[in-house]
Amino acid sequence: MLIEVAAVGVCGSDVHYFTDGRIGDFVVEAPLVLGHEASGVVRALGPGTTGRLAVGQRVAMEPGVPCRRCRACRSGAYNLCPDVRFFATPPVDGAFARYVVHDEDFCYPLPDHLSDDAGALLEPLSVGVWAARKARIEVGSQVIVTGAGPIGLLAAAVARVAGAAEVVVSDAQPSRLALAKKMGATEVVDASRGAGSRGAGSGGAGSGGAGQSTAREVLDIFAGREADVLLECSGAPQALEAGLRGLRGGARAVVVGMSPESHVRLPLSLVQTREIELTGTFRYANTYPAALALAASGAVRLDDIVSAHFGLDEVAEALQASRRDPLVVKPVVLPGR
Amino acid sequence: MLIEVAAVGVCGSDVHYFTDGRIGDFVVEAPLVLGHEASGVVRALGPGTTGRLAVGQRVAMEPGVPCRRCRACRSGAYNLCPDVRFFATPPVDGAFARYVVHDEDFCYPLPDHLSDDAGALLEPLSVGVWAARKARIEVGSQVIVTGAGPIGLLAAAVARVAGAAEVVVSDAQPSRLALAKKMGATEVVDASRGAGSRGAGSGGAGSGGAGQSTAREVLDIFAGREADVLLECSGAPQALEAGLRGLRGGARAVVVGMSPESHVRLPLSLVQTREIELTGTFRYANTYPAALALAASGAVRLDDIVSAHFGLDEVAEALQASRRDPLVVKPVVLPGR
Amino acid sequence: MLIEVAAVGVCGSDVHYFTDGRIGDFVVEAPLVLGHEASGVVRALGPGTTGRLAVGQRVAMEPGVPCRRCRACRSGAYNLCPDVRFFATPPVDGAFARYVVHDEDFCYPLPDHLSDDAGALLEPLSVGVWAARKARIEVGSQVIVTGAGPIGLLAAAVARVAGAAEVVVSDAQPSRLALAKKMGATEVVDASRGAGSRGAGSGGAGSGGAGQSTAREVLDIFAGREADVLLECSGAPQALEAGLRGLRGGARAVVVGMSPESHVRLPLSLVQTREIELTGTFRYANTYPAALALAASGAVRLDDIVSAHFGLDEVAEALQASRRDPLVVKPVVLPGR
Amino acid sequence: MLIEVAAVGVCGSDVHYFTDGRIGDFVVEAPLVLGHEASGVVRALGPGTTGRLAVGQRVAMEPGVPCRRCRACRSGAYNLCPDVRFFATPPVDGAFARYVVHDEDFCYPLPDHLSDDAGALLEPLSVGVWAARKARIEVGSQVIVTGAGPIGLLAAAVARVAGAAEVVVSDAQPSRLALAKKMGATEVVDASRGAGSRGAGSGGAGSGGAGQSTAREVLDIFAGREADVLLECSGAPQALEAGLRGLRGGARAVVVGMSPESHVRLPLSLVQTREIELTGTFRYANTYPAALALAASGAVRLDDIVSAHFGLDEVAEALQASRRDPLVVKPVVLPGR
Repeated sequence: MLIEVAAVGVCGSDVHYFTDGRIGDFVVEAPLVLGHEASGVVRALGPGTTGRLAVGQRVAMEPGVPCRRCRACRSGAYNLCPDVRFFATPPVDGAFARYVVHDEDFCYPLPDHLSDDAGALLEPLSVGVWAARKARIEVGSQVIVTGAGPIGLLAAAVARVAGAAEVVVSDAQPSRLALAKKMGATEVVDASRGAGSRGAGSGGAGSGGAGQSTAREVLDIFAGREADVLLECSGAPQALEAGLRGLRGGARAVVVGMSPESHVRLPLSLVQTREIELTGTFRYANTYPAALALAASGAVRLDDIVSAHFGLDEVAEALQASRRDPLVVKPVVLPGR
Repeated sequence: MLIEVAAVGVCGSDVHYFTDGRIGDFVVEAPLVLGHEASGVVRALGPGTTGRLAVGQRVAMEPGVPCRRCRACRSGAYNLCPDVRFFATPPVDGAFARYVVHDEDFCYPLPDHLSDDAGALLEPLSVGVWAARKARIEVGSQVIVTGAGPIGLLAAAVARVAGAAEVVVSDAQPSRLALAKKMGATEVVDASRGAGSRGAGSGGAGSGGAGQSTAREVLDIFAGREADVLLECSGAPQALEAGLRGLRGGARAVVVGMSPESHVRLPLSLVQTREIELTGTFRYANTYPAALALAASGAVRLDDIVSAHFGLDEVAEALQASRRDPLVVKPVVLPGR
Repeated sequence: MLIEVAAVGVCGSDVHYFTDGRIGDFVVEAPLVLGHEASGVVRALGPGTTGRLAVGQRVAMEPGVPCRRCRACRSGAYNLCPDVRFFATPPVDGAFARYVVHDEDFCYPLPDHLSDDAGALLEPLSVGVWAARKARIEVGSQVIVTGAGPIGLLAAAVARVAGAAEVVVSDAQPSRLALAKKMGATEVVDASRGAGSRGAGSGGAGSGGAGQSTAREVLDIFAGREADVLLECSGAPQALEAGLRGLRGGARAVVVGMSPESHVRLPLSLVQTREIELTGTFRYANTYPAALALAASGAVRLDDIVSAHFGLDEVAEALQASRRDPLVVKPVVLPGR
Repeated sequence: MLIEVAAVGVCGSDVHYFTDGRIGDFVVEAPLVLGHEASGVVRALGPGTTGRLAVGQRVAMEPGVPCRRCRACRSGAYNLCPDVRFFATPPVDGAFARYVVHDEDFCYPLPDHLSDDAGALLEPLSVGVWAARKARIEVGSQVIVTGAGPIGLLAAAVARVAGAAEVVVSDAQPSRLALAKKMGATEVVDASRGAGSRGAGSGGAGSGGAGQSTAREVLDIFAGREADVLLECSGAPQALEAGLRGLRGGARAVVVGMSPESHVRLPLSLVQTREIELTGTFRYANTYPAALALAASGAVRLDDIVSAHFGLDEVAEALQASRRDPLVVKPVVLPGR
């Protein structure tokens, strides 16, 4: 199916490939088109299509098409397919382009009232939906989210939509916490200041802290919470440990943020004595319909995290925007502009 | 712990005991005080208390105190404890009284902004929370709720809070459907008219149906929905079958409403070929904290389903109120009035 | 991939199609080759193969190849794919043939020490594995299996291999119970005689019953067992009710046997008050590797249930064998004979 | 209930308290009777008993009696009860004594054919049952067990009984691997030699390795296995990493062995990219009935791991036995000797 690309969000992974040429074991060894958070319009059907989607239909594209035959695929965990073709993962080109070809069943029709941007941002929203599912958040859950980048913000939003009673979001860049509250956080914690430095949302505490807190204080910023769920979205090992310390026995911890290091020093005895279930997310599977429902109903407002738009000739600038300005949450490239 | 009773909701089971003297195998053979949805104020602590709750504390009471020692209790399914003492289940007296004695750990402190009525109605809300948990509703779920009595209304409300994208509520008494929409239904279906008679919420369809539909039409009111979850809250076998027909393969069906008959004719081949998971609820376990969180945050507004108040000398009238007038959803007795 | 068929088991569904021309909604409207429990030898690879299987490789064939694209397929529940092509399900021809064409990834290499018969019977063993998985049998479980036909026998065998401490098998044809004990039952119950008529394995009880028992007695043959799991493999509604009465609160009931009627009168209040999880099985998904491991290790001895062999010209006879003689458990057709 | 103690196994935790005076946060600050793996005979009933167990009844004692009232207890996770009284955990005395007092519902009647030793060793067997449950082992699973001490041996035995097709056990003390095969391992790996050094059970490989392998080789001893489950029972961080490297995507890793350090360097990116579910065990809950069933049926032969017996006056010697001789797996104290 031939898709004319309408909007593509810039993801941290795009930035890594652009600046470092690699992310962990994924290495860029040949010219590579980046961009994997994409929406567009069907322009031609091609072989293997069913007619379910017509030419002219606006769609969101789930960026990874798996082999459909391996053990992972057949058991529903197609995100773990070793032969997946995923936009902008070497050597597969991505969507910073005028046109892409994509499988029909990985294209989702967009309702008219959803913007192209929102269609593109179903991708990071899917990451949040997947994290919430892995965490088995339910009505009344108490949730800690560490990290208020795009993924943390959307994970927090999904947690709230899933009925969590408390969604506490921490970040070491306080400027992001206001947006966290807008996206559904019931409370925010300035992780640059350590325990006690809770935002206005918590009832006013914490403004007194003078200067940086000690490392030990940072690790205790969630002490005593006895939360049900941790969604670690920062990639920082200290945030992971701080979050784990805030969990009750039998809680679940889902590591969404990627640490730059392959190995991390973890409080394993804590995991054991509290029987915490710790897992991580790698992309997502079967989440697009739910993500689309959340965006379409207005339960999650994706347009709120879009910071700026760029043309196809400004991709390099788009890729550097969030590094230059921490207030830039999600730049979006519009290839047709 | 001695509790002065503040408010007690009237439940359908109270009405059954009052008019029929029995519910299934539970038979009233001696004078019995009814009422099990109760809130109150701690008036004395007594032995075995920890001091966690002070005299004067307003509390909601979870009405069943289990043995704490049997297999069911030790595995967390204390609602299935064969030796549970449950308010107003023969031969244990209930809460239509000035004072009751109750175990401390089954009393939950109420925040100031929650009414006595809401404290009492955490009980039916717990039924809804339990149903949603059994159904494993998650963000984006499509949910069918059959029956818009108090339990169906609260189950629908919880489903919505849990992030369900669609919550379709049916009832054979159309008068209740407006309240269903207020409580969170995204669409309502008038089950007295059969397929096609969807309420205004669905976009206007179905007003044309003249008069009663056939039985076959009623069974197909959800045809083609491919929903993820059915919460059967009416006790009517036709509603159960209609709901089952609306489910996708691998869906879950939770039977909350009690049928007057012990046996029901079920479409078993449908359950098999779609591998539907069917279960029922018997009270609830470990739900009060979540129910309290939902009520306290305003996510579920319990006061909205209270229809009328009665004094302790008007209990007989309260017990007959909903039978006399289908618009009466939840009568509440205030023993102190 | 072109497969020369080596052995094909005769299933009750083949018999139904042969004698009645239909099974429920599946109707034979044109000539149809039957047979879906099949093993064979790879004779040619064809397009779309990977080289994983070589010409000459002996294989077991999983008979249903799904579309790989629908919601069910992508979520791992490919047995619920509406577009599955399944051997001997109208209008798809089956394996009572010299050659069949089949997808590579639904062919499983057989170790040398497994017979062609065993390769074919991985199919009904998969049904047993799927039932055990749905039932979440674990070490120490107490399991009731109603029905000792091929499926009941294999389900009982899998339950025992899964660590069940008790596996009680009932059948109304006492002649089958000896084989049940051979396959792993720890106790057998003659369901033609009702409560008390337990086999020698139970310690000698029950031999006194003279003649048929009453219907009520039959429903109580498992009374008081408080089992964790029911695997209903007979298709008889009375067996289902008897089994349900033998379960503890919170138990799981898996309906494997198909009733001839689409609707069955069920003790729904029992399901509710004990919060039994009831579901059914429709074929299986992702079970062949486990079934193969069980057969290859000798944990389940599939050759023990083979009763007789037939040539391709004797298929009609094979299809009638078990109806003529209840001692015939599993006839096998050898197309190459 | 007054119990005359019959047999008490010596656990590694007893040894730690004896030699180091502490285990992690649990510190011995006053004289403490050790021993928590215990069987005995009921000698007097006392208050709060039901008559279910008679004087003279032989019983196994589950060593931890929880509060029955906290959130953990009420949800079935009573092993996480903060107020549990557990034999030989400071300041609660243990069972190296002639008599102990214990709650009736934490005493399990022993059948005549089970030895006192076996009754005591239901405790470590419970640890294995709990690990297998957390790991959701099912028929056909491929399981890695790292560490062949008493817990690893029993975990391997339970895995096999649960239907695992492969149970590979590694240990750095090769002398223990023969016992591992006796207890149910299908293959053993000498972890002191690194990759390639598999025992005779694997088909003969690996005997050629000359001397110690490199650290890198040790981490790869399970490379390529794509196992479903890891049960880490050694407490060694390298074993944990080696085991994690042997898992397939979506696998489960259960950390049973306690590391001497509170923090461990873990391959977190591996856990993330393969979405491994990692958790730990802290004691167990609701496992004694299953453990008893496994021992009573002969599925797990507990007497096989008993190395030596000691009298009550030889407890100090018993506590040092396994440190002195690595071939001593499980010393047992007989207070009545």
